[in-house]
Amino acid sequence: MKKHVVGIDIGGTKLATVVADATGNILSKVRQPTLAEQGPEYALQQLFEMVYETLALAGVEQSAMSAIGVSCGGPLDTKTGVVYSPPNLPGWDAFPLKTRLESEFQVPVTIENDANASALAEWRFGGGRGYDAVLYMTMSTGIGGGIVLNGRIYHGANDSAGEVGHQILLPDGPRCGCGKRGCLEALCSGPAIARRAKDAIQKKPATAILTLAGGCIEQVKSEHVLEAARQGDAVALKLVEETAYYMGWGITNLVNILNPDIVLLGTIAMAAGALLLEPIRETVAALAMARPADAVKIMPAQLGETLGDRAAVALVV
Amino acid sequence: MKKHVVGIDIGGTKLATVVADATGNILSKVRQPTLAEQGPEYALQQLFEMVYETLALAGVEQSAMSAIGVSCGGPLDTKTGVVYSPPNLPGWDAFPLKTRLESEFQVPVTIENDANASALAEWRFGGGRGYDAVLYMTMSTGIGGGIVLNGRIYHGANDSAGEVGHQILLPDGPRCGCGKRGCLEALCSGPAIARRAKDAIQKKPATAILTLAGGCIEQVKSEHVLEAARQGDAVALKLVEETAYYMGWGITNLVNILNPDIVLLGTIAMAAGALLLEPIRETVAALAMARPADAVKIMPAQLGETLGDRAAVALVV
Repeated sequence: MKKHVVGIDIGGTKLATVVADATGNILSKVRQPTLAEQGPEYALQQLFEMVYETLALAGVEQSAMSAIGVSCGGPLDTKTGVVYSPPNLPGWDAFPLKTRLESEFQVPVTIENDANASALAEWRFGGGRGYDAVLYMTMSTGIGGGIVLNGRIYHGANDSAGEVGHQILLPDGPRCGCGKRGCLEALCSGPAIARRAKDAIQKKPATAILTLAGGCIEQVKSEHVLEAARQGDAVALKLVEETAYYMGWGITNLVNILNPDIVLLGTIAMAAGALLLEPIRETVAALAMARPADAVKIMPAQLGETLGDRAAVALVV
Repeated sequence: MKKHVVGIDIGGTKLATVVADATGNILSKVRQPTLAEQGPEYALQQLFEMVYETLALAGVEQSAMSAIGVSCGGPLDTKTGVVYSPPNLPGWDAFPLKTRLESEFQVPVTIENDANASALAEWRFGGGRGYDAVLYMTMSTGIGGGIVLNGRIYHGANDSAGEVGHQILLPDGPRCGCGKRGCLEALCSGPAIARRAKDAIQKKPATAILTLAGGCIEQVKSEHVLEAARQGDAVALKLVEETAYYMGWGITNLVNILNPDIVLLGTIAMAAGALLLEPIRETVAALAMARPADAVKIMPAQLGETLGDRAAVALVV
């Protein structure tokens, strides 16, 4: 009886494979570095071995595996299962990931970009359970997003929907990784917060942010800003306030356009907790239209460390 | 055999009722002023009589009517059919429109806000035919919108989705009708274009805009701006360029978030044609992410004068 699934999480720095039962409980896991510079063929051979190893660890026969879900950096085509040159996976150019995995394992493979898969996992297993219109946003090295409507990922015309981090707030603002200027991501991603912190430190070096970064401005990260803000550091509190304002502005636009039941904020926002969430909520309450603002909950995402594994599994359970 | 439907279009200035066949062809129509100041009971009695008259005009027995579709200003609740104080319908406070119509006519009644119903009509009968992800935007006294996914209106958590005109572009910009500042609507609606034109004329009165408005700055409307731009007037061309930039910026955000197959622009954009559409397309091409920008068509809406009637009918055919 085929009642187990395999989840594969492909990141720029690590690969992970898990085996889960039909309700999504994870039974075993294997992880190792991606060594992205080795390219897709190397990674694929590693993944083959890892899947077999993960099945063995769980005591699950290959014949009991019903499907494989893959969470991977995009862009990718969910219908054909071809991956198109994700920024964090050099050499994965028009790589037929789905076909290659199906050839090896002879089961249906579903591939999905990681933000969408994470959104689905939050709907299935996390903070989005029970809601029909779920918006998930991650604040990490970028600001990604996924929209889950009635339990299904909303893909849009060509699997590009949910790029909520690339709404433009300040057209003359800082350059974004996408090549444009002033995207929400260019203001509120981890590196963007760190960049704004460095600018602030140049003007006012007497801040706990610098101390927490070991006195070296090049080492400043968003975590140092949040920690310094918790200590009451004025420079850090101002940076957190700005971050919450831009996030709140961006979420306001999403609330007015999408009227979600819930917005789930992951990674940095999850780690920061009320420090960031409260001023974000206040900004949305002040800027959004009354009716959609009344309807929406703005909450931390719930899945944390297990998110990548759950994301892959959510695609096939 | 019940094969006809009735459409009701309730606006702030006019009421219209139509009878259509099962494919949406309109057979008869009656219209009259809303006299909105008379309140909802008066309008409802008028609508009852108008429906009977429209059926008679079409030679359709009441027993052959299968359903009624109603397009009405929002906010409203599509499930309960209660209308909640639309700005253009004073006194319609928690008015149970669906129940009242169903009591009178003994057929199922579907009510929908006019922007959503228009979007559905464009998908069913107009420029959105054949597309799975359709975004309709009207540039009129406000900037409304509707999202049609796989042939169904996307409502969101509480029927507030699609308020695309209330994404905030300039938080310190002009006051919007919604009470906030710098919404797309506060920059690009008809009255907003006229307001920017008046500001421009104050600075530089030698413009064809003023001539077209009969020399009276108070009479300036968006139509005068478009006409003057067609004549090559420099002030008007600058205003059109600004309008296209803001519209293009707003549409860029929608393209990155929703990845639509097509964006259909109604009313002012329809009337302006290439004058406005071309620079809007150029702005989106410059600002949006490559993949969703490649997928999207930006086109004029198609239904024009018949939109209100088709909108009501689209809800029930």
